[in-house]
Amino acid sequence: MSAPETLADRVLSGDLALHELEAHADADTAVEARRRLIAQETDTDLSALGAYAFDAGDAQSNIENMVGAVQIPVGVAGPLTVDGSSASGTAYLPLATTEGALVASVNRGCSAIQAAGGANARVFQSKMTRAPVFRVENVHEAGTVASWVRENEAKLAAAAAETTDHGELLDVTPYVVGDSVFLRFGYDTKDAMGMNMATIATEAACELLEEETPADLVALSGNLCSDKKPAAINAVEGRGRTVGADVVLTREQVEDRFGTTPEAIEEANTRKNLVGSAKAGSLGFNAHAANVVAAVFLATGQDAAQVVEGGNAITTVDVRGDELYASVTIASLDVGTVGGGTKLPTQNEALDILGVRGGGDPPGTNADAFAERIAVGALAGELSLLGALAADNLASAHEQLGR
Amino acid sequence: MSAPETLADRVLSGDLALHELEAHADADTAVEARRRLIAQETDTDLSALGAYAFDAGDAQSNIENMVGAVQIPVGVAGPLTVDGSSASGTAYLPLATTEGALVASVNRGCSAIQAAGGANARVFQSKMTRAPVFRVENVHEAGTVASWVRENEAKLAAAAAETTDHGELLDVTPYVVGDSVFLRFGYDTKDAMGMNMATIATEAACELLEEETPADLVALSGNLCSDKKPAAINAVEGRGRTVGADVVLTREQVEDRFGTTPEAIEEANTRKNLVGSAKAGSLGFNAHAANVVAAVFLATGQDAAQVVEGGNAITTVDVRGDELYASVTIASLDVGTVGGGTKLPTQNEALDILGVRGGGDPPGTNADAFAERIAVGALAGELSLLGALAADNLASAHEQLGR
Amino acid sequence: MSAPETLADRVLSGDLALHELEAHADADTAVEARRRLIAQETDTDLSALGAYAFDAGDAQSNIENMVGAVQIPVGVAGPLTVDGSSASGTAYLPLATTEGALVASVNRGCSAIQAAGGANARVFQSKMTRAPVFRVENVHEAGTVASWVRENEAKLAAAAAETTDHGELLDVTPYVVGDSVFLRFGYDTKDAMGMNMATIATEAACELLEEETPADLVALSGNLCSDKKPAAINAVEGRGRTVGADVVLTREQVEDRFGTTPEAIEEANTRKNLVGSAKAGSLGFNAHAANVVAAVFLATGQDAAQVVEGGNAITTVDVRGDELYASVTIASLDVGTVGGGTKLPTQNEALDILGVRGGGDPPGTNADAFAERIAVGALAGELSLLGALAADNLASAHEQLGR
Amino acid sequence: MSAPETLADRVLSGDLALHELEAHADADTAVEARRRLIAQETDTDLSALGAYAFDAGDAQSNIENMVGAVQIPVGVAGPLTVDGSSASGTAYLPLATTEGALVASVNRGCSAIQAAGGANARVFQSKMTRAPVFRVENVHEAGTVASWVRENEAKLAAAAAETTDHGELLDVTPYVVGDSVFLRFGYDTKDAMGMNMATIATEAACELLEEETPADLVALSGNLCSDKKPAAINAVEGRGRTVGADVVLTREQVEDRFGTTPEAIEEANTRKNLVGSAKAGSLGFNAHAANVVAAVFLATGQDAAQVVEGGNAITTVDVRGDELYASVTIASLDVGTVGGGTKLPTQNEALDILGVRGGGDPPGTNADAFAERIAVGALAGELSLLGALAADNLASAHEQLGR
Repeated sequence: MSAPETLADRVLSGDLALHELEAHADADTAVEARRRLIAQETDTDLSALGAYAFDAGDAQSNIENMVGAVQIPVGVAGPLTVDGSSASGTAYLPLATTEGALVASVNRGCSAIQAAGGANARVFQSKMTRAPVFRVENVHEAGTVASWVRENEAKLAAAAAETTDHGELLDVTPYVVGDSVFLRFGYDTKDAMGMNMATIATEAACELLEEETPADLVALSGNLCSDKKPAAINAVEGRGRTVGADVVLTREQVEDRFGTTPEAIEEANTRKNLVGSAKAGSLGFNAHAANVVAAVFLATGQDAAQVVEGGNAITTVDVRGDELYASVTIASLDVGTVGGGTKLPTQNEALDILGVRGGGDPPGTNADAFAERIAVGALAGELSLLGALAADNLASAHEQLGR
Repeated sequence: MSAPETLADRVLSGDLALHELEAHADADTAVEARRRLIAQETDTDLSALGAYAFDAGDAQSNIENMVGAVQIPVGVAGPLTVDGSSASGTAYLPLATTEGALVASVNRGCSAIQAAGGANARVFQSKMTRAPVFRVENVHEAGTVASWVRENEAKLAAAAAETTDHGELLDVTPYVVGDSVFLRFGYDTKDAMGMNMATIATEAACELLEEETPADLVALSGNLCSDKKPAAINAVEGRGRTVGADVVLTREQVEDRFGTTPEAIEEANTRKNLVGSAKAGSLGFNAHAANVVAAVFLATGQDAAQVVEGGNAITTVDVRGDELYASVTIASLDVGTVGGGTKLPTQNEALDILGVRGGGDPPGTNADAFAERIAVGALAGELSLLGALAADNLASAHEQLGR
Repeated sequence: MSAPETLADRVLSGDLALHELEAHADADTAVEARRRLIAQETDTDLSALGAYAFDAGDAQSNIENMVGAVQIPVGVAGPLTVDGSSASGTAYLPLATTEGALVASVNRGCSAIQAAGGANARVFQSKMTRAPVFRVENVHEAGTVASWVRENEAKLAAAAAETTDHGELLDVTPYVVGDSVFLRFGYDTKDAMGMNMATIATEAACELLEEETPADLVALSGNLCSDKKPAAINAVEGRGRTVGADVVLTREQVEDRFGTTPEAIEEANTRKNLVGSAKAGSLGFNAHAANVVAAVFLATGQDAAQVVEGGNAITTVDVRGDELYASVTIASLDVGTVGGGTKLPTQNEALDILGVRGGGDPPGTNADAFAERIAVGALAGELSLLGALAADNLASAHEQLGR
Repeated sequence: MSAPETLADRVLSGDLALHELEAHADADTAVEARRRLIAQETDTDLSALGAYAFDAGDAQSNIENMVGAVQIPVGVAGPLTVDGSSASGTAYLPLATTEGALVASVNRGCSAIQAAGGANARVFQSKMTRAPVFRVENVHEAGTVASWVRENEAKLAAAAAETTDHGELLDVTPYVVGDSVFLRFGYDTKDAMGMNMATIATEAACELLEEETPADLVALSGNLCSDKKPAAINAVEGRGRTVGADVVLTREQVEDRFGTTPEAIEEANTRKNLVGSAKAGSLGFNAHAANVVAAVFLATGQDAAQVVEGGNAITTVDVRGDELYASVTIASLDVGTVGGGTKLPTQNEALDILGVRGGGDPPGTNADAFAERIAVGALAGELSLLGALAADNLASAHEQLGR
């Protein structure tokens, strides 16, 4: 194996391509060589990126052309007690972010929820989707293909099943637009986020469909999945986990923790999250659910681009007599406790803080519990921000925290 | 100052709250104490989270209740030549992700763009927004307040200007729903992402409005901003940078790089990104722009929750004679090269790789150039994924890369 | 029975309310009395409104407080040959409108379709929906109710079936947001538009649900139906008929009828109907499908407010070699050939022009054929307008036709 | 001039086309000949369609290929007192519909509003739009064109002004997607709905733009207008009139008129119109505003396809102490009191009932008053339906009224 300097020289001389270094050196050496080259070309110091504390070889299924790692500070909010369908008991919430005041804000919400004895949470649906698009001759052929799919779901499920031991095809829904047929396949992918599993299984089902019908595959994803796009189909029908969380606070708890009243929080929620979002043509009727989704996703090795879908959340607040009922329901939360970035050391530890590392028993319950923890975290964030807004102190909170 | 063990004991005994540790020890000691406590309570090993390579004291405006840092691998795609309004010349794109194949995919797109001599890019608008909501008596009062705003924009701008040397109020647009009045303030915030600047300036303007009109502030953000929510108002009117990028590839370049034809890529784009997104009720008419937005955001210290808005992108592909025209336009890309997470060491270095660290000359041009680089990166990602779909090899690509 | 003058006097003297006249005179006399009163109070001549040519008594299930009838001119477009799943053969399309140029425009499209030998059409789904909303205690109870619904669809169908001989419950889908549970009931309502049938059947199912679960009905419609609102759930999942139509035109036919090329029409469709609608945050990716839907609805006694849902249409245009493929797919077309306004004389005759009056054999096929005729009419309208735009003559066409 | 029989024979023999009859006979004879032909071909009796009571010659700018007229019953709701910016005093609302119970329902709402002393109403914006789409070379050229537009709005306004004495260009907003540039022109069109005026003026402006910049017009409407499509741009930015109406009812009035409580109506509105619409991915946060919009549009000769845009309405309900505040705000209500179908006799009389026939003094005030009347009518409809739902009697109301 070569030293970084040698490798770098070979790239500079055109002997090697930048992405070929791992074939000529151990992973860490390749990373160092590549980082040196970039530093040299940009005339900058990239030593901080190189100060990562894991074995680059262990990240080879996570990254290509690696030059190092970014370090994002992680704080904790909590403790937070959850009564969920899978989540149970008390845990801290690990949040990776560089936006000051966020952890403090969520923490304040957690404190209110704890004062109320914890929050409820429930996964309503677990279904990872993939939706290929096919070309057909005309609307008649489209109708024929759609009918075939409705009548042969079992065959498609069998074809999909041959590709995976973990996933299971739950349903397939056909949608037609002119001479395009879209099939939305929904899978139970247990503790995995499951997009790759769903993609591979769907590819097998597509082969069957092409054999049995006149449909021709145009793209394995036809955007009705809809992965990493802000789409109503996810907000309405759900993707990944659809999960809700709620809590009831007494008037005293509201006043004590937020310095405001249940009525003021309800009004802020109605005018901002409901009416304001309505006027904005929004798919997200919440204050900042994506903040919590993003921070937990980063800490735990989830796919950060799926934060887009995590923004499909509706927050409701209702004064019930002398108490405040608040809920957050996230329609499309794509989470996994195995695979992807969860295997990396720091991410793995963050899942440990939540008590949801690895596969659940029975399978799927760890990811369910994880989704429920995130939903309660989002609820804490919503309560805190709505409370702050109601108390007219958002900007001053930012000023005090030094930004 | 205390040792971590002592601090941990004081928290356990109830003498200190978890968030008060920084007042009793230096930042790194406080972090260690807090991490120890969490590790002990959860009976886990959190040493990887503790292996961060920066001074916790330097992150105190970025995080609260810090326990360590998550490490996310960073790869580079490129080189990528951009002819932008601010971006110019060749640079690599730093991408932080744990989703294998992403960097390789973007890299393949970059290679095609380079073969074509680089891509065009242009910032069409730069405007950070904040939209408070006010309570009024009825629709008459709402009309009066809206009229006052239209006639007194200069006064509102002056009030806003007193809070900042860097930002500038560009416009204020009133929206009325019954007895709620929403004002969408738009600011030029130069090289800062600018949300805090916009919030503070808007607060000052709100005070003026409350003095001069019967409107009562309900919430400093009324969700027409719309920050971190998937909202049509951002997709239509833009937020942060509205930026486009495009390239023309010859048929040979398409065949050589993607193993498919311009016609096949156009068809995949039309059926998937246009018709499929239409049928999905989507605000994102692209294949996976959020992947590139997220990966660059993580690498460079942007606000990860704003990935939500970055999903508002439209990709177009058009066969022009024997060539392929492709473009990506992102409506609401919230970026900054100063402030927030950009100050942390690894994030700062990632901005260095792009050549856009710190304030630009003139102010704003660094963030403009940054936005243009991201748009071209997204274009590379779109071309690569559309090319792969057109060649029917998405799933097999994933299989080969080992996930 | 009383003379109109007497009745009018009794209303003026406060002896009778305006809506009570039918109890004291035959229907036409009551209408005359009411019209006289309004004419007198507004000091206007309302004789044209009184010149209706049907028996007011036959309209008593269609209108209250009747004062007369509005007369809207009806033109025909066609002939139009359709190869549908239910529609077959050639017919004219009756269009009621006051917008000059519309019938001429649709007619031009029909002429092109006829030159091509007619159009294909196909109903993909027929399902009228009603979606009540229930209050529950919290997310746990919401989950329990949703599960009960999934497991007891047969019981709900049986309860619904007791209210109707014509409709049939096809499926029920639960959606949860916090402490609200929405159930979207889908019915096959045969040749009736079916909203009242669906409402009554759903009311029976709701009673069962309230007996068997802790859910409390808040509103029999919870807006996930979604009736007469521009909602993504209809655009995605369909409501009433989901129907598509398409045609292939030769280059010569395009040039001959529209004075332009297949390529120019494709470009107009892509930039306007696909990219433009995408940028507009639209649920309607068409040029003016609502024009045809509205004009046929008015002529045939459909519910004019459901024109809103008829706007959820996607138009695709694709150059296939030397030919032009064009399609229109309407996601939510609420039509009936029995009941409602279809019984009135002029409306009944308009259905006769289309050959779809009354119940079909087998039931449902008349409304299916009707939907297919409308879809082909919309296709004619799209082709004509796109052709006109492509030939840059929209405004001049309007000028020539005298508006 | 020829007798109908002669004309019919000439069409049958191929001597004349169906649309050429008006050139060979007076309008009514041509209509009769055409109706005879269709009746003969379809073997049906179309005499009711022929029983129209206006001069077909007066409708020649409203319809082509006329065969008769459809008669739609008109009822009145009211009286209704409005305190608007232009509307003032008491009037009845003419509603053309075939959906039984609608007029009765609106009437019940009117009665409640009258008990409260009438409703407020206010037009917030009046702006008819037209948005052409242009082709440019790339994003640089797009940026250049957009900048030219921003800097030359006065020139564009001057070009537009040459085409009309009534309309006035208020603003032009450029939107860019890749190599497409959309310009949204907004006009004050006074008492006319104004779409044709806007189209013609925009065509003139486009000619200037094509001369002065490299942009090429692709379509005079690029769907950002957005005419007759359910689009967020209209819901957010408004089109035609943006108008609100509201009322405050005492608890007694609510109980007396609706048999329910303010709290129950508020709950129905929140769960159905706000949360339900949110979950449905809707642009319409109301119960059935389109019903009132459609019924008034039909009665008064408005463009029925624009009912689509009238569905963009938000209803809010708020318990204020012991009273109920309710509002409806319609974002995009396209109305006119001159031109189009308003000139026909029955339609003209319906405008007379409202007191808004013809041009206003000053110009625009009649259409403003008309919009305010519709908004209050929609408010009446919302209150009534929400009241009925709250009292759990929607289906039974339908049953009693005989459908």
